[in-house]
Amino acid sequence: MLHVNAPRLLADLAALARIGATPEGGVSRPALSPADLEGRAWFRRQVEAAGLTFHQDGAGNVSAILPAADPVARTLLCGSHLDSVPDGGRFDGALGTLAALEALRTIREAGLALPVHLEAIAFTDEEGELVGLLGSQALAGQLTQAGLDHPRGGRDKLLAGLARAGLSEASLLAARRDPAALRAFVELHIEQGTRLIDAGLDLGVVTAIVGIRSVWLTFTGQAAHAGTTPLTRRKDALWGAAEFIGRARDMVAAQFDPGVVNCGILHAEPGAFNIVPGRVRLALEFRHGSEATLDAMQTDLLALAAEVAARFSLSLAVEEASRAIAAPLDSGVIAALEAAAGRLGLSHTRLMSFAGHDTQVMSRITPAAMAFVPSVGGLSHNPAEFTPDEAVIHAADVLLHTLLILAG
Amino acid sequence: MLHVNAPRLLADLAALARIGATPEGGVSRPALSPADLEGRAWFRRQVEAAGLTFHQDGAGNVSAILPAADPVARTLLCGSHLDSVPDGGRFDGALGTLAALEALRTIREAGLALPVHLEAIAFTDEEGELVGLLGSQALAGQLTQAGLDHPRGGRDKLLAGLARAGLSEASLLAARRDPAALRAFVELHIEQGTRLIDAGLDLGVVTAIVGIRSVWLTFTGQAAHAGTTPLTRRKDALWGAAEFIGRARDMVAAQFDPGVVNCGILHAEPGAFNIVPGRVRLALEFRHGSEATLDAMQTDLLALAAEVAARFSLSLAVEEASRAIAAPLDSGVIAALEAAAGRLGLSHTRLMSFAGHDTQVMSRITPAAMAFVPSVGGLSHNPAEFTPDEAVIHAADVLLHTLLILAG
Repeated sequence: MLHVNAPRLLADLAALARIGATPEGGVSRPALSPADLEGRAWFRRQVEAAGLTFHQDGAGNVSAILPAADPVARTLLCGSHLDSVPDGGRFDGALGTLAALEALRTIREAGLALPVHLEAIAFTDEEGELVGLLGSQALAGQLTQAGLDHPRGGRDKLLAGLARAGLSEASLLAARRDPAALRAFVELHIEQGTRLIDAGLDLGVVTAIVGIRSVWLTFTGQAAHAGTTPLTRRKDALWGAAEFIGRARDMVAAQFDPGVVNCGILHAEPGAFNIVPGRVRLALEFRHGSEATLDAMQTDLLALAAEVAARFSLSLAVEEASRAIAAPLDSGVIAALEAAAGRLGLSHTRLMSFAGHDTQVMSRITPAAMAFVPSVGGLSHNPAEFTPDEAVIHAADVLLHTLLILAG
Repeated sequence: MLHVNAPRLLADLAALARIGATPEGGVSRPALSPADLEGRAWFRRQVEAAGLTFHQDGAGNVSAILPAADPVARTLLCGSHLDSVPDGGRFDGALGTLAALEALRTIREAGLALPVHLEAIAFTDEEGELVGLLGSQALAGQLTQAGLDHPRGGRDKLLAGLARAGLSEASLLAARRDPAALRAFVELHIEQGTRLIDAGLDLGVVTAIVGIRSVWLTFTGQAAHAGTTPLTRRKDALWGAAEFIGRARDMVAAQFDPGVVNCGILHAEPGAFNIVPGRVRLALEFRHGSEATLDAMQTDLLALAAEVAARFSLSLAVEEASRAIAAPLDSGVIAALEAAAGRLGLSHTRLMSFAGHDTQVMSRITPAAMAFVPSVGGLSHNPAEFTPDEAVIHAADVLLHTLLILAG
C-alpha cells in the first residue's frame, strides 16, 4: 500500500517551524508578515524541488500543482494555511499544508496518472490577522470591496500586508476561480479540542463546521434597597440571569449535544453592594453544525429566558448580535476520508468543528470536508501545541488515500 | 386617656414640608444646607412658642426640653432627624422629630410632673450627606478626628456645612454626653418597606437594627474557546457565580428569614461572546439583626460558595469588604412601646430594621428602641413618601404613652 515519505514530511514540519520561531517553541507568522512571506518562499522552494508546479494567485494563495495529462481536467484541491496567530503553534495550518504537499510528492513519485489535477494549497490569512479566511473567500468569490473597507485587523494593516506581498485589493477581488473547474476540497487540521485524544482515536472526520449565533439578553427588574426590600418582593435582574445561565447549560448538554452554549459577558446595573440589580445584559452565544438544530436551540433558549424572566417578574429584551451559518460538509468527501482511514486500519469518529476553517468557505463552491488530527491537551493558538509524529504520518497517509479515492 | 393634639401635629408636618419643598411634592434638606438650617430655625420657633427650652449642642443637634423639677434627674430622650436626602420625602425623620415635640407639648399642657427631664431631639446629618449618623455619633462620643478626616460626603462639604451652621470639628468632638445622665432613647420612623402596610398593622416595634456584612467572592476557573471546549471540560467561573447567586437566595429565604442577601456587583472576565469566563468577582452582602445569626449566615454562605466552586472545578477567594455590627434594641423600651400600643388599642408586630438609624448609635450608650409607622408602598428617599394622617397620630400617641411608661 502507498504511504507518504514520513522522514521527509517530518523534516519539512521541523524546517517550517524554524521560520518565525518563538523562544517558547511556537511560531509567529501572522498573515503577510515578513515571517509569513519567508514561509511562503520556503514552500515555493520545496514545491519546485519536488518537480511540482508552483502557483500563486491574486489573493496570495500559494500552491503545488501535479497536473493531469488532460489540461481541461478538474482540480482536486487539498491543503490548509501557512500563517499563524501571533505566538501560535507549529501544527495549526502547517500540518495540513505540508501533508498535502507530501501527498502530491508521493503520488508523483509513484508515477500514478490521475484523471484530475492535484493541487496542494496554502490559503492566505486563515487566522484573521487581516480579514480572516481571506484566501479561501477570495478563491470562492466571496470577497467584496465593502468587506475589505472594514477589515477585522484594520485597513492600514491590510494595505501594508498586500503591498509587502505584491498584492492589491484588485488582485484579491480577481482571484475567484470557476467552481466548475473544481472536483473537491479536503483539509487536514489539528483538533482544537481533546475529543480525539480523550477517546484515543487516530482521526476525526468532520461532518459540519458549526454555525454561531450571538444574542444579547437584557433582563430588567427593579433596582431596590438591598436591606429594606424583602427577598419575596424583589425583582432582581441578576436572579433571572443567574438561573438562565445554569439552565441554558443543562438544556444544551441534555438536548443539543454536541452543541455548545456560552454566556461570556454579564453587566449588572446599577452595581453596588447594597442595591438589588435592576438590569442585567447577558451575552449568549451558541454553536451547532446544523442550522435546523440552531433554530431549535434558539427557540428553546429564548423560551427558557422568557420563562425565567416571568418567574422573577422581570421583563426580557432580545437582540441578535451576529450569525454565522453552519457549513454541512460533503458526504462523498466524508466517505472518502472514512474509506481511506479504514484502508489504513486507523480508528476514527465523526465530529463537528466548533471553530472556523477554510473548509467552510470551500464547501460553498465544491464538495468539501476535513479531518482532525489529535492534538495533545487540545492546545491551539499556543506555543505548546503538539501532535506526535505517528499521528502526523497517519493523517498524511489518510489524505493521500482520500485523494486517490476522490480522483477515482 | 391622654392624646396628642392631632391638628397641631399635622399642621407642623405640613409647615415643615414647605421648607426645602421640591416640585415633586417632596423635600430637599441635606444636612446643614441652607434649607436644613431654615428647618432648624423653624423648629426652634416651635419649641419656644410651646414654652419648652431650646437647646443646641456642639454637633448641631437641636432639642426641645421639658425639665423635671429635680435638676439632677436623668434625661429621657426621644426624636429623630430633620435633614433629608436630596429630593427626599416629607416623612423620613420629620415624623419622628415632630411627634416627639408634640408629645412634650402634650405632657407640658397636661401639667404632668415627671421624675425625668424630657428631651425631643433632632440629630444632625442622619442621612449621610456629610458623615452619616453624625449627630448621634457625636452625642454618643463615637466620633474621632480620623473619621472626620475622610467623611463620606467629602471633606470640603463637611467643613462648609459646619461653618454655615456655626459649628466646628472641635465642637463636634466635644458634643459627647455622659451616658449616666440618660434614662433611655426612643424614636419613631416611617418603615422603609411594606411589611406593616401589607399586614394592615398600625405599628412595628423594632427589636434590632441589622448588622451588614459585605464580602467579595472571586471564582477562578479557566478562560477558554467557547467553541472548541466541550461543555464537560469547561471551568466556567460564571457557572459557579450563577449557581451561588440562586442557591444563596434560596438558603437565606429558607434558613435565615427575615435576613436578606444581595449580590449587587458581578464582573466576569475576560468578557467576550466567544470566550468562556475564567474569573468572576461577585459582591455579596447579607443582613440580619443578630450577630450570632450573621455568623451562621457567613459560615453557611461561604460553605455554599466553596461547594459550588468545587462542583465546577473553580478556585474560590474570599475578602471581607466591610462589617456593620447588629444593634439589638432594649427589651425594656420595646416592652414600653408595646404596652403603649396595647393601651391605645393599636395593632402591632415585632420586626427588624434593615436600614440604619440614629437608634442604633444611641443603643450603645442607653436603653433604646424604635417603632416603625406604615408608609404607603414602602417608599422612602422618594418624593412620593406618604403616611396617612391617622397613622401619624396613632404613632405620636404611642410615643407619648411610651414616654409616660418609661418615665415611670
